[in-house]
Amino acid sequence: MSPLDALRDAIGQRHVLTEADASPYLTDWRGRYDGRALAVACPATTGEVAAVVRLCAGAGVPIVPQGGNTGLCGGATPDDSGRAVVLSLKRLNRIRGVDAENDTMDVEAGCILQGVQEAAREAGRLFPLSLAAEGSCTIGGNLATNAGGTQVLRYGTMRELTLGLEVVTASGEVWHGLRGLRKDNTGYDLRDLFIGSEGTLGIITAATLKLYPLPEARCTALLALSSIEDAVAALGMARHGFGASLTGFELMAGDCLVEVVRRFPQQRLPFEGSAAALPWYALLELSDSEGEAHARERFEAVLSRSIESGFVKDAVIAGSTAQSKALWHLRESIPLAEREAGKSIKHDVSVPVSRMAAFVRDTNRALQQALPGVRHVIFGHLGDGNLHYNVAPGGGWSEAALLARQDAVFEVVHDSVHAVGGSISAEHGVGQLKRDALVRYKDPVELALMHSIKQALDPRGLMNPGKVLAIGRE
Amino acid sequence: MSPLDALRDAIGQRHVLTEADASPYLTDWRGRYDGRALAVACPATTGEVAAVVRLCAGAGVPIVPQGGNTGLCGGATPDDSGRAVVLSLKRLNRIRGVDAENDTMDVEAGCILQGVQEAAREAGRLFPLSLAAEGSCTIGGNLATNAGGTQVLRYGTMRELTLGLEVVTASGEVWHGLRGLRKDNTGYDLRDLFIGSEGTLGIITAATLKLYPLPEARCTALLALSSIEDAVAALGMARHGFGASLTGFELMAGDCLVEVVRRFPQQRLPFEGSAAALPWYALLELSDSEGEAHARERFEAVLSRSIESGFVKDAVIAGSTAQSKALWHLRESIPLAEREAGKSIKHDVSVPVSRMAAFVRDTNRALQQALPGVRHVIFGHLGDGNLHYNVAPGGGWSEAALLARQDAVFEVVHDSVHAVGGSISAEHGVGQLKRDALVRYKDPVELALMHSIKQALDPRGLMNPGKVLAIGRE
Repeated sequence: MSPLDALRDAIGQRHVLTEADASPYLTDWRGRYDGRALAVACPATTGEVAAVVRLCAGAGVPIVPQGGNTGLCGGATPDDSGRAVVLSLKRLNRIRGVDAENDTMDVEAGCILQGVQEAAREAGRLFPLSLAAEGSCTIGGNLATNAGGTQVLRYGTMRELTLGLEVVTASGEVWHGLRGLRKDNTGYDLRDLFIGSEGTLGIITAATLKLYPLPEARCTALLALSSIEDAVAALGMARHGFGASLTGFELMAGDCLVEVVRRFPQQRLPFEGSAAALPWYALLELSDSEGEAHARERFEAVLSRSIESGFVKDAVIAGSTAQSKALWHLRESIPLAEREAGKSIKHDVSVPVSRMAAFVRDTNRALQQALPGVRHVIFGHLGDGNLHYNVAPGGGWSEAALLARQDAVFEVVHDSVHAVGGSISAEHGVGQLKRDALVRYKDPVELALMHSIKQALDPRGLMNPGKVLAIGRE
Repeated sequence: MSPLDALRDAIGQRHVLTEADASPYLTDWRGRYDGRALAVACPATTGEVAAVVRLCAGAGVPIVPQGGNTGLCGGATPDDSGRAVVLSLKRLNRIRGVDAENDTMDVEAGCILQGVQEAAREAGRLFPLSLAAEGSCTIGGNLATNAGGTQVLRYGTMRELTLGLEVVTASGEVWHGLRGLRKDNTGYDLRDLFIGSEGTLGIITAATLKLYPLPEARCTALLALSSIEDAVAALGMARHGFGASLTGFELMAGDCLVEVVRRFPQQRLPFEGSAAALPWYALLELSDSEGEAHARERFEAVLSRSIESGFVKDAVIAGSTAQSKALWHLRESIPLAEREAGKSIKHDVSVPVSRMAAFVRDTNRALQQALPGVRHVIFGHLGDGNLHYNVAPGGGWSEAALLARQDAVFEVVHDSVHAVGGSISAEHGVGQLKRDALVRYKDPVELALMHSIKQALDPRGLMNPGKVLAIGRE
């Protein structure tokens, strides 16, 4: 029997897609990577996933696991050899159970993030992971890439939100590691090894997730700032003054907000006079366990101190949920305004918060030396040290001319990140996009350890070959 | 040159201990494990640690890393073959730097936990790890065992408190992985693999730790409860009502507190009448970013609701720091009172919070069937699902008669833990003590994955042999 027939036999003919049916699975959503595949297999149970893996292992066929296909680094797209099977987890999408008393839920890899958030809310609980693609990304993809998003400051990344895993290994065995335990010191941390490994060590089929109490109220404020140094001082004061109620601290360059209000005239910057023309703004979010009035009271107490201290020039506290949403909308519109202005070169970097100001200054300078006149589009999660430092056309640079220099831009920005002990991928992962850059920046001992682990858990190199590491290529 | 001479050459004659000088390093502090060693090596720098490891690797000599030697499972004691070198990290004890703006500090493995807490406080920050041995345990040991303690509910275990590591690998290379980044998705999570691996995969020489704002005030309350079910309901209400301000939720059996006030008459239970004779009590701690008055106000609001709801019978809120300390002192005196009554058989287990009541009921019943009359000493970190379920002499059982049945007691309790999806080691690790039990309870696929990783990172089995896994024995 051919591998394809064996697959059809194992999970049903109509769940093995070929030809045109397969094509949506062969291109990443930004359209940067195109691939080919022997077939797309869509198993519906963990047992079926294990059967597909065993069949592929037996036939020496590489496997490319895929969730919602919303990744940004080509981690879920096969290469163009056509030898691999894409294994879509989308049909493995049951919420297996919510244990409200234990504040946990067991969900399968194919569950859409938003569905998981909603199921938690129905049980009176919060599942805090939140990111732009939440309407279509899957929990499996969130786990594979250790997703971050807007609530990391308080709740951590996917790794901190996960207690247990169920995994199909490279040999097609099932590790039953779902557990709702906050403490368990019985051996090596396999959970965190599989999380963030982008499907190169095995396939996560289900997870036990942590739930949190729903906050009574959320409230936001916008600060006007003269410098990144002042933003970092404001972050310190906010962390001290608000404790763990501080769930967001987003930094935005004034340029970005000017562009938002120019392109979307129904939006406005809620400052006047000199405070409306400052180089930096920060959006703060409090999640309060007492209520909206208390959150506003806390904002007033702490922000008035930081204005007195001089490092916050002005501040606006949202007076209603609608105003809170309007402030978040300013932040969320930055990528939309950026897109209207043409394609840009994007970076997803993190640096120590204490190096943030120097990093931005030095990178801006190095970029202007290399490509005089280009525009910088700078915003991100300052509370996590995570910046989306993007480079856009401007100053005589056309979109095409700029994109032709993409590798040079990457190198300037990533060298600058590396110089301050930062990371070239804060939250998007490695995939294909950053695989070769990893070799340039990673400690060689660390890279060798990664290779040893890959070799140990996937000795034949069939699990998502060519992703993260340049071994086991298809 | 003999291995011993080569060691003396590498780190200096007086830092290679033999004979009587070595003996304090060859017995664990509870006196359960005795071993022998070729020598105790005390390197003072990461370079010297690497040199010792390379020498030992070259000569095929096993290495047993040791920190403060306060572990509870014999993880840092060599076996009695006398072939191994004990590698003490105690001289590697510099605080390399505090970055207050980034809320991180770099410390070496041999730093005493209390010294790290103090250095953080001097910088106006909190390093939250806190446990009974903090005056003598080292950060390296805390990392090797993924230490927990009393603040896990809010801040997590050592894993959640660590951002980067420096590690000497089994071949004596140095992985320079110190980084002060809250987000970094560039490859496999080696950090969390080394943390909790008890020195069996490599030797952690330094770490980048997370710091937090110092709370403005801490305040405690004591609740009187009729059942564990009510305690779990109170925990749910406290988590919702206090959010992340809730930094402690300790459950104590009424028996335990009766024993404390009987043995230490200067202590008293702050309840009268029926509330002084209930089967369960809970100690709650709030860490407040506003102040003591606010913390008490919050306690009053939430606790009065839980008394109205009927699942808290009575509550006392500490009116001062001295009263807070007195309440904590009751909790901390439980192990002391237990010790006065004779040796007991101790367990360090975790179960899902939702299964806690059933677990205690079923385990009590099974134990009374197996050993009629023994006493249960039950207390622990309910907020983490972590119970110290101890079994003490009583009802006709002498200390000697009970201890002779230790294995039978372990089996009853651990079988019961396993039946509800719990862990036989919540925070103390595996070491030698629970190595064989691990084989009984661990998913065989998980155990096989652990063996693969051990084989990949320590192919010759020289790193802390016989600990965690029954391979690479000395």
